[in-house]
Amino acid sequence: MLTRAELQTFVDTLPFNSLIGVRVTGVYRDGVRLECQLREELKNALGTMHGGVYASLADAAVGMSLVTHFEFKRKVTTVEMKLNYFLPITEGKLIARGKLLRVGGSLAVGSVEMFNSQRQLAGAALITYKLL
Amino acid sequence: MLTRAELQTFVDTLPFNSLIGVRVTGVYRDGVRLECQLREELKNALGTMHGGVYASLADAAVGMSLVTHFEFKRKVTTVEMKLNYFLPITEGKLIARGKLLRVGGSLAVGSVEMFNSQRQLAGAALITYKLL
Amino acid sequence: MLTRAELQTFVDTLPFNSLIGVRVTGVYRDGVRLECQLREELKNALGTMHGGVYASLADAAVGMSLVTHFEFKRKVTTVEMKLNYFLPITEGKLIARGKLLRVGGSLAVGSVEMFNSQRQLAGAALITYKLL
Amino acid sequence: MLTRAELQTFVDTLPFNSLIGVRVTGVYRDGVRLECQLREELKNALGTMHGGVYASLADAAVGMSLVTHFEFKRKVTTVEMKLNYFLPITEGKLIARGKLLRVGGSLAVGSVEMFNSQRQLAGAALITYKLL
Repeated sequence: MLTRAELQTFVDTLPFNSLIGVRVTGVYRDGVRLECQLREELKNALGTMHGGVYASLADAAVGMSLVTHFEFKRKVTTVEMKLNYFLPITEGKLIARGKLLRVGGSLAVGSVEMFNSQRQLAGAALITYKLL
Repeated sequence: MLTRAELQTFVDTLPFNSLIGVRVTGVYRDGVRLECQLREELKNALGTMHGGVYASLADAAVGMSLVTHFEFKRKVTTVEMKLNYFLPITEGKLIARGKLLRVGGSLAVGSVEMFNSQRQLAGAALITYKLL
Repeated sequence: MLTRAELQTFVDTLPFNSLIGVRVTGVYRDGVRLECQLREELKNALGTMHGGVYASLADAAVGMSLVTHFEFKRKVTTVEMKLNYFLPITEGKLIARGKLLRVGGSLAVGSVEMFNSQRQLAGAALITYKLL
Repeated sequence: MLTRAELQTFVDTLPFNSLIGVRVTGVYRDGVRLECQLREELKNALGTMHGGVYASLADAAVGMSLVTHFEFKRKVTTVEMKLNYFLPITEGKLIARGKLLRVGGSLAVGSVEMFNSQRQLAGAALITYKLL
């Protein structure tokens, strides 16, 4: 299994994940935990975390779960994602716990639970990846 | 109906849309057309446009369709989104044509077709908004 | 291209499609048009067409679009579906126009627009299939 | 909280749920457990449980979770559903464990894990309901 530091080092090489500021805060047998700090640049018209940041972090949570699962040996690409929004992030962090539900021969599916800094459920996602 | 320039002026006040570089290129009775130029900061692990940028642009395409529909008179927030990825963006632009399918009393739904610079279909989305 | 009658003959061999009563009413270059008549057995707690019937008909609309595209030469299976409900069907028919958006080497994606008997938009779906 | 028998009595009044044969096998604080036995009429072109039955059972799993939550006091209707298919049901039962993730003032969201008779994960869903 990858260490948290190894996965963070990899994430830091990824331009868009770096732009939004993705931090790896946990690596588990079944997935990873990522987070992203709200800052001015990530806000929407309502002054809260933009939905696109949720989507980017959820996508990364499943992508990094697969990177961890395959220990960098397979490339993957997103087939589709579905995300429900429950709570706005008005301050602090958006936290995403990705978990692999199914890893097949050509496709993999992960779920993501998203939380605010108070550990309230802020969103949920189901994401399908293709194994290249 | 809003003009393209009026909508661009509004988009320019939105921090995250400005960060990724959202341009308004069309305003129609049923929706809007947005685009985003690929640049280094928006790339994923494969060197192509990050899926989170597609999601952000798709979300904005329906959100701005609603802003146009209501001429700034109602605030809206994303309930959920679903996005399929067809083609990577390796250079040039990602283009999103958002179209309102249904505007009810409390909810609205839009579809988005996404294209690369060669006008090939690069993705498709269905997005639900809540009218606040 | 298959004829409407050839596709109807195939649909009639499918147990669940027969149970809900799927009729083929159009075969096109890019997809098919199916419909299903509301009857007592297909109702939900509100006395209207059950959401599961919409899902079954939408799934069939993309599946039959692929059967038509491949002229029975490939087997396919649903990877995932997403469906938005706009209007209840209180009488008459639920109509589904399926359209293939993308047919790749291993995956295909179709969209579905669903209508009531008055040709009002009653739902929309995005569905991913795997080509076996 | 409703008893399993009370909820089964209600489900038995619902025409489409009766048609596919929905059984209530568990009622919990956060949701319900339903199942459906494979029989000839529920099969697809591959001879396995039709995807529309998964969708119908998943929809019912969240719907009945809400009926239980509100103890019959509120009517609800499906806004949208998203379902991923992992395994075919070739014999035995399809089991759906619905769980409410979020119950707001006007919307509610539930997740569903679906299993085959061997308790292997056969599908997963995220479903949004409107509270009428």
